[in-house]
This record gives sequence, C-alpha cells and structure tokens, in this order.
Amino acid sequence: MRASNLLISTLKETPADAEIVSHQLMLRAGLIRRLASGLYTWLPMGLKILRKTEAIVREEMDKAGAQEVLMPSVQPAELWQESQRWEKYGPELLRITDRHQREFCYGPTHEEVITDLVRQEIRSYKQLPVNFYQIQTKFRDEIRPRFGLMRAREFLMKDAYSFHLDQASLQETYDNMYATYSRIFSRIGLEFRAVQADTGSIGGNASHEFHVLASSGEDAIAFSDKSDYAANVELAAALKPQGERAAAAETMTVVETPAQHTIDDVSQYLDKPASQCLKTLLVEGAEEGSVVALVVRGDHELNEIKAEKHPLVAAPLTFVTPEKVLEISHANIGSVGPVGLTIPVIVDHAAAFVSDFVCGANQDDKHLTGVNWGRDLAEPETADLRKVVAGDPSPDGEGTLEIARGIEVGHIFQLGENYSSKLNAVVLTESGKSQVITMGCYGIGVSRVVAAAIEQNHDDRGIIWPESIAPYQLVLVPVNAHKSVRVKEKAEEVYQQLLDAGVDVLLDDRGLRPGVAFADMELIGIPHRLILGERGLDNGMIEYKNRRSGDGEEFAIEDVVSIIKQKLS
Amino acid sequence: MRASNLLISTLKETPADAEIVSHQLMLRAGLIRRLASGLYTWLPMGLKILRKTEAIVREEMDKAGAQEVLMPSVQPAELWQESQRWEKYGPELLRITDRHQREFCYGPTHEEVITDLVRQEIRSYKQLPVNFYQIQTKFRDEIRPRFGLMRAREFLMKDAYSFHLDQASLQETYDNMYATYSRIFSRIGLEFRAVQADTGSIGGNASHEFHVLASSGEDAIAFSDKSDYAANVELAAALKPQGERAAAAETMTVVETPAQHTIDDVSQYLDKPASQCLKTLLVEGAEEGSVVALVVRGDHELNEIKAEKHPLVAAPLTFVTPEKVLEISHANIGSVGPVGLTIPVIVDHAAAFVSDFVCGANQDDKHLTGVNWGRDLAEPETADLRKVVAGDPSPDGEGTLEIARGIEVGHIFQLGENYSSKLNAVVLTESGKSQVITMGCYGIGVSRVVAAAIEQNHDDRGIIWPESIAPYQLVLVPVNAHKSVRVKEKAEEVYQQLLDAGVDVLLDDRGLRPGVAFADMELIGIPHRLILGERGLDNGMIEYKNRRSGDGEEFAIEDVVSIIKQKLS
Repeated sequence: MRASNLLISTLKETPADAEIVSHQLMLRAGLIRRLASGLYTWLPMGLKILRKTEAIVREEMDKAGAQEVLMPSVQPAELWQESQRWEKYGPELLRITDRHQREFCYGPTHEEVITDLVRQEIRSYKQLPVNFYQIQTKFRDEIRPRFGLMRAREFLMKDAYSFHLDQASLQETYDNMYATYSRIFSRIGLEFRAVQADTGSIGGNASHEFHVLASSGEDAIAFSDKSDYAANVELAAALKPQGERAAAAETMTVVETPAQHTIDDVSQYLDKPASQCLKTLLVEGAEEGSVVALVVRGDHELNEIKAEKHPLVAAPLTFVTPEKVLEISHANIGSVGPVGLTIPVIVDHAAAFVSDFVCGANQDDKHLTGVNWGRDLAEPETADLRKVVAGDPSPDGEGTLEIARGIEVGHIFQLGENYSSKLNAVVLTESGKSQVITMGCYGIGVSRVVAAAIEQNHDDRGIIWPESIAPYQLVLVPVNAHKSVRVKEKAEEVYQQLLDAGVDVLLDDRGLRPGVAFADMELIGIPHRLILGERGLDNGMIEYKNRRSGDGEEFAIEDVVSIIKQKLS
Repeated sequence: MRASNLLISTLKETPADAEIVSHQLMLRAGLIRRLASGLYTWLPMGLKILRKTEAIVREEMDKAGAQEVLMPSVQPAELWQESQRWEKYGPELLRITDRHQREFCYGPTHEEVITDLVRQEIRSYKQLPVNFYQIQTKFRDEIRPRFGLMRAREFLMKDAYSFHLDQASLQETYDNMYATYSRIFSRIGLEFRAVQADTGSIGGNASHEFHVLASSGEDAIAFSDKSDYAANVELAAALKPQGERAAAAETMTVVETPAQHTIDDVSQYLDKPASQCLKTLLVEGAEEGSVVALVVRGDHELNEIKAEKHPLVAAPLTFVTPEKVLEISHANIGSVGPVGLTIPVIVDHAAAFVSDFVCGANQDDKHLTGVNWGRDLAEPETADLRKVVAGDPSPDGEGTLEIARGIEVGHIFQLGENYSSKLNAVVLTESGKSQVITMGCYGIGVSRVVAAAIEQNHDDRGIIWPESIAPYQLVLVPVNAHKSVRVKEKAEEVYQQLLDAGVDVLLDDRGLRPGVAFADMELIGIPHRLILGERGLDNGMIEYKNRRSGDGEEFAIEDVVSIIKQKLS
C-alpha cells in the first residue's frame, strides 16, 4: 500500500479526554475516531489491525470445529422475557421499540437467540455436541463509557455457544476452547494468563477468564512462575506453610506501646518484622449478634471473599463498630489481640505458623511479645483468610506465585442448564427420553484485544504491534524522494520486490520530512522499517530499524528481500 | 468439511409464509432461519455464501483504491438533524433512546457519519479525492418486511462514499465504481445490467442502478442486445422512427363503431392492426384549467413520467374527468380523436409516423379511418410520450432493446454537494479558499445479492450456485459407506486428496440413503458432485454430475484430482 492512498491521521497532541495509553495511542495514531460517547469509527489503518485479529480468532475457532453463524443484532424482547433477563439485565441493555410498538434490544450477548435456534434445529442427541460462534457487533449501554475501546458501547465480539448431552461432553468442548483461546492469544503474540474465575451468581460449573497482562489492567492476577496456574488474586488459595512451626524461644511479656496503633507503628516501635506481628480483626459472626476474631500476619492482607465464606462469619463481611470492639476486647482498635478473647478466634494458616509473635494485649497502648500458640493460648482454629502475595507457593504445588495486573479479553463459562431449561431446549436421548441440553459459552472481545495489545506493547514513541496484527509488517521510507529521482526509482523498485515477495509493505511516499515520517511510523507502531536515501544508494546500502528493539543495521539493497523475509519469519 | 460436523437443516416442505423462490429455497436449504419479522440468522451453510460474496466485494473495492473503514451502526440524532433527515426519513429509520435519554438511530445508511468524519479529517484539496467504504449490518424498519432477505429489516450492505474537489474528479471515481461494480457482479457470475436511474428528488447529477436479471424482479428494465445501454423501462427513451412516413393511400372516412371503446375492440372490429389505431388521452395542462390531448399508437403505452415532463402538461399527470372529456370532445371516452380538437395536441413520435390511421371521431360510437397527418389535420407537435417495447431500437443507436425484470442489488449516485453543504464539509483549495466538497455514494446490498443469485439460478430441485459463491465447490457422496469399509476408506482417501489440492470439498459422511443425500445437495446447490460406490470401485471408477447442466460422467478414481481441478478452473 502507498501511504499517499491511505488516510494517515496522526495527532501530535494527546487528546485531553483519553485517560489510558491505548485510548490515547489509538487516537494519536489515527486508528479510531470518536463519533459519540462510547461510539468509534475505525479508520483504515485501525481496521486492518481489527481484521487481522478477527481473522486469527476465526481461523482458530474453525480449526476447533466450531461452526460460524451470524445472528441478528436486534433481538425480540419475548426471548429475553422467556429467559427472565428482560427485567433483570438493567439499563445496559439498549431497549428499542420498532414502528409497530414491538419491543426489541440491541444484543449485548446472544444466549437467548442461539438457544432459540437450537431448540428448533437440534432434536436428537445424535446432533450433539455442537458449537456455534459468530463475530459480530454488540452494544452495551455503559453508564459512563470510557477508555476508548476498552469500555465502548458498540464493540466487536466473538461469542460462541456449545450444546451437549451431558457434563462430560461440555467439559471436553470447554477444554478444547481453553486450548483454542490459548492458541489465539499466543498467535497474536500477547502475554496472557487463563485465570480461574468465580462463577458467581450465574451459578455455572466452571469458568476461566483470559487476561492480557498489562500494568494498566483492572484486575490483579496471581500466577505461577512454573505452571499454568493463574487466578484472580481474590480467589487464589494461600497454602498452609510446610514443616514444623519454630519452637517458642521467648516468654510472653506485656510491653508499653503508647499511641502505636498500626502494624507499621508497632513493628517499628518494637523492632520486630511485620511478619511477626499479628493483626486481629473483629467481624460479625454468622449467628445473629455474634462476633468473631480473625487473625492474619501483619504483612498480609485479609481476603474478604475468603473470610465471608467461613461458616462462622457473616456474609457480606462486616467489621463491628469501635464501640463493640471496646465492649468485647476491653481495648480500642489497635490494641486487640487473641489472648484471652472469649469469642471464636479464626487464624490464618500463615499466622498460626508464627512463634514468639507480637499482638495486641487487649489493653489500650499495650502489646504482648513472645506469644506462642499452644502455650500462651490454645492451638487455634485455622483457615485460609488472606490474599496471596508474590513469592507465595503456587496452589498447584508447582513454582512460586507472581502478581501482575491483567485486562480481561476472553471468558469461557460452563453455563449448564441455565438457559436451556428456561427456554426448554431439549433433545431426545438414545432411549427416547426428553432431556434438557447442557450449555457452555465462550467470548472474546475482539476490539478489546486490540486495545489490550497496545496496553501491553508501547513505549514513549507509540505503539509496538505484535507482528501478527500489525497494520503493515514493514514500512519503506524513501528520504527526500521528491528531490532525488534515483531514490524515488529505487524505492519503487524495492517496494515492488517486497510486494512480489508477499510482504505486507507500506511505502511512505507522502514526501514528508524524514523525521516526521519516522515519528508517524513509530507512533503507528509498524514493526520493521527500511530507509532508503542518497547516502546509502552511493554504497548500494539500505538502512533497517526494528521498532521493538530499536536495533538498526545496514545491508546491501540487493539482499533486501531475503533479509526481510528472514526477519519476518 | 465433513457434513457430519456441519449443521445441515434442509426442509422437505416449502414454508407457507415464503412468497418468492429465493426465500423459499434459503429456508429449505437451511441457509437462514427467521428470528422475528425481517430478522434472520445465517446458518453455517448460508454464512459461507455470504462471506464469499462479501470477500469478492471487498477485494474489488480494495483494487479500486477505496479504503475500508467501519463506522458505528448506532448514530447520534444530532447529525441527522444537521442534514435535515431526522424528521424527513420517516418511520423506516429505527429510532433509539439511550439510558441518558439521548436520541440515536440504527443506521440505514451512513452519509451523515462519513461526512462528519471527513469534515474533521480532510482539510486540504491535496487529500482529495478519497473513497471510503464499509461492509456492515444496517437496519431499515420496513413496514411489511417480506421476501426473506430481499426486503429484510437487518441486512448486510457495502456502502462507499467518495469526496472530491470538483465534478470532473467525482465523474472519474464514479466511472471507476461503475467498472468495479461490473467486475463484482461478473466475478460472482450473475447476469446483470447497469441501469440509468432517475436521480429524482435527491437532486444528484447521475445515478445508475445495478440489476440482477430475474423473472421475479420488481423492476422492468430495457437494455440493448448489442451495447451496454440499459435503463428502467420508465426512463428509456423511444427514438423517432427513421426515414419518411408512408404516403397517404386512403381517404378519411367516418365509420360506425357501435359500442367499440377500447383499441382492441376497434382494431378487431375494423380489422386494422392496433399499431394503426391511435389512442387520444386528455390530461390537465400545465396552465391552470387547460386541457391537453396526448396521442400514442394503440399498441404503445403512455409513459406518465415522460408525459408530465412536457412543458404543456401538468405534473403529476392527471387525466381529466369523463364530464370534461365530453365537454371538450363532444364525445365520451373511447371515441375521442385528434381531428377537429381545439386544444393543444401532442403526438408521440411513433404515432406521428403512422399514415392512414384510425382514431376516434369525437362522436360517440364513431371512428375515422384513413386519417393522415398534414392532410386531414395539421402536422402535429411531437414528443417522446410512450414506454419503450421490446424490439425498439436502443437509444444509444446500437442494437435493439430487450425487456426483462431485474432485482436492484447496487446503486451508484453522484450526490454533489447535498450532504457536504448541509454539514459544512469544506476543504481549502490550492488558492487557499474554502470550498464545499463534492460527493458520490455507492451501495451494494450484499445479503440481497445472495437472494438475487438464487432468483436467477435455480430449478425445481433447488439452488444452482454460481461457482464463485457456492458454499462448497464440490460434494463427495460415498454410497452406503456404513456398510462398506472399502467405500468408506476410499472416500476418505479421495476427500483428503481433494483437500490437499485446495478444493473446497464437502464430504457427505452423514450416512443417509443416497437419494436423500443427493436431494439435499441438489437443494443446497453445490455445483459439482462425486459419487463413490461399490459398483464403481470394482472398476476403479467414480461418478460425476454437474448441478447446472445435469450432465454426468464416469472417470477413473486415480484421475479425480486432475479432472476436478480442470472442471473448477
């Protein structure tokens, strides 16, 4: 492609309303333009990236045996009423009334439509399992659209829905989709993790989110440095420490800690590491009016989701009032400790492993040092109560946890019979009985992947595209071609050679000053750059620069095709 | 692809609500399913056809130098208010109110959005001309959606918009699009005509519709058998007859024609051809209260569009009342004629070329025979007043007109400054002045092309796909493979060979009775069929059948790849 035939609308300034890097760079590089809140037009350069991403998703879904369909974007309200989501879905569902006053919505998802199709077309167990997908524009009427395509209202999505006779078959397709998603994000060239997700209120059986790792990610993810294990930090299990607790060496002693309330205060004041200072938190118990003490190490954070799952603890987790703390512990917050408490005490595994620990003395401005479980107070009831931290052992027993932030770009989910039972999607089994179909669903936010790729791959000069989805593989910049016929002619020749060799090359024939052209192409993020100028021509040389590494080199013009083919492979 | 991995949902019965062949066959062949009125899901087999059609459109648009973009389907009302179409467009525009009570529509077309983009991104004449296109789902809230995808509410469209400094540049891109559309429909393999269209109320400069010829078409088209000339029958010019009118041979005579009112009556009664009997019609004149007589040959039909363009005739064309006819001609309708009329008489070129003609005598139940222009009444004022008929000379002077029915699948249009002036889309010219941009627009109904292809290509057994958009090029049907290991194994081998040779082959491994499988594949319309059975295997032979010609042959299995490659090329 010749740049002169392409709308290249780069911006020097970062638009004021773009808060995150991908949004800023997509606007600056001229990939998208805003039409209205949460609505974006893909410009030619941006659309090439989107289509390449879409093609990879389609190829891998086809390889996985899924069948592509295309459902209407506009869906009748009746189906959503059958699934009981018409009222439940809330104002994110863009409701539409047609000229005959019939109600519809602009589909944010297609469980109802595909289940309606399947209940009509699939009658026998022999037709199962089956997996349908589509790549389609969806709409979610976000209350506050922002972050560009990361949280747009109109967006491109790949959604798939599988149908099964039983859970074993669902599990098989689910595993296939898990592997397919891994292949898709690997092929695109993204660092990602498949993260165990909470199946939450939908009540399915299993669920994984696929996160692209990026510092701007909304979710914190814990993952093993040795295995595939990954989970949302909230959900990652903290293992019991291995081995024996160290023997008690100190004597329990009451010490004055005037005005020392936080762990940091006490740790510093007593010159003990925070990991040896235990935190005691009083929360409402599951039994009406009861109170429970939760104990974690000072360097650990209480995981509220884990805590509220404990049978003795009320959900949602509720801290008791300062008055209640004083009534129960006879001390104010900051001096509470497990010794002498008459309420149930639940201790995190790691906290139960500490000997000679420091804790509140249940007297204001006093702490205890040299406290030991099983000696100064009973051996505690233990549970996993804390958030994992980097360096914890991976729950699958392989390697150590790292923690990073992630952007969710895919989600696979075992729906079970949730939709099929409400819409009465049944098949006849081998024995002739009617049986409700078991379902799975699998989504990829295709336009979101593009934004996430930028969040993961950029520097202060602009985007650094993974090769697989770069708008062009290579840009050829002739220097001052408008002044030099030699340069212009040689550039045309090299351009044609590269095209003939199947290289997706952009010829920057816009006649801009070299610095301006280079800055544009670095902002846009084309992975490879060739520069052809008078100076090089004198020696038969062409200059090369890699966008990601910044490494440059010169080589003979006559070798250009073979060297570039090598670099692209 | 293995048919066992593909949803093949053929129907034996023709669905009751499908009125036209393409709708019936798309449902019966399992290409689409109805979700709601005017809303269809594309099943896997149908979507393959749609995607192949889309790919051809995309390739040719890219080759033509158009740049692909993707605009939101949801558009803000403000832009439509600027172009003054928000109120004008009527209830076909699906209006949407979002959660913040802001008004939007589901785009039926994108002139406003693209013009808004261009007025922001294009500032200089140097950036012109430019041509943007998209392939996108659109919505038109038809009052009575019907005919399946022929008049659906949600449909796939390719729409392009070009921007220019002047009319000459617009004309160049328009001609390019004309040629591109011709290539697209030729590549798909459709018989079509580019038809001059009325620019009508939009007030553009030039416009062509692209029609796929099919007997079920909504529009009658006149086209030359020798040249590219084609026009809607309403708009095709009827040329003046060449040469000299025959000399008068008869004497004007009043004859009794009791109760003979129509041309057919009179022609039969007097034993004169209808072409020699002239029809006289009284219509309102352009001047208030005036009446004008229009005369056409009895075998010709008045073209109302042409008539109302005549300066003496009122628009819209209005026939005068029977009372008025009596008052002016002293006879009732059926006996009116031009001789002795005192109102302006305008005579169609062909009618003015007839000598010794028959016409009403302006007395009830009487006609005149042997009437001659320039003898029995003045030489008339002539004009083109009639619809063309098959056999008329083509207006471009090359060949003879044929008339056929067509389905409009594409439309190209010179919009001029209609949208750009309202939205103030201007550029700076070379001399630094601000100038309104000149626009063109170019549409193809991609999903409609698929339906039109069926209307043109089917028989009583089903669809006959053009090779370019067939869901599969070839189907391989093993006969009784579930009983014969030999057949099954050989079929797998041939299937693999064909796949390796790049043939888009479907293996019908469903294990159906041969007759049922054949009927399915003929209904679906796959162009080539191979049948492999025990009998053939004994002789090393495989059976071939062409879907379109119905011709069959047998050839050696070992030659299958080379022979099939030959048939497909």
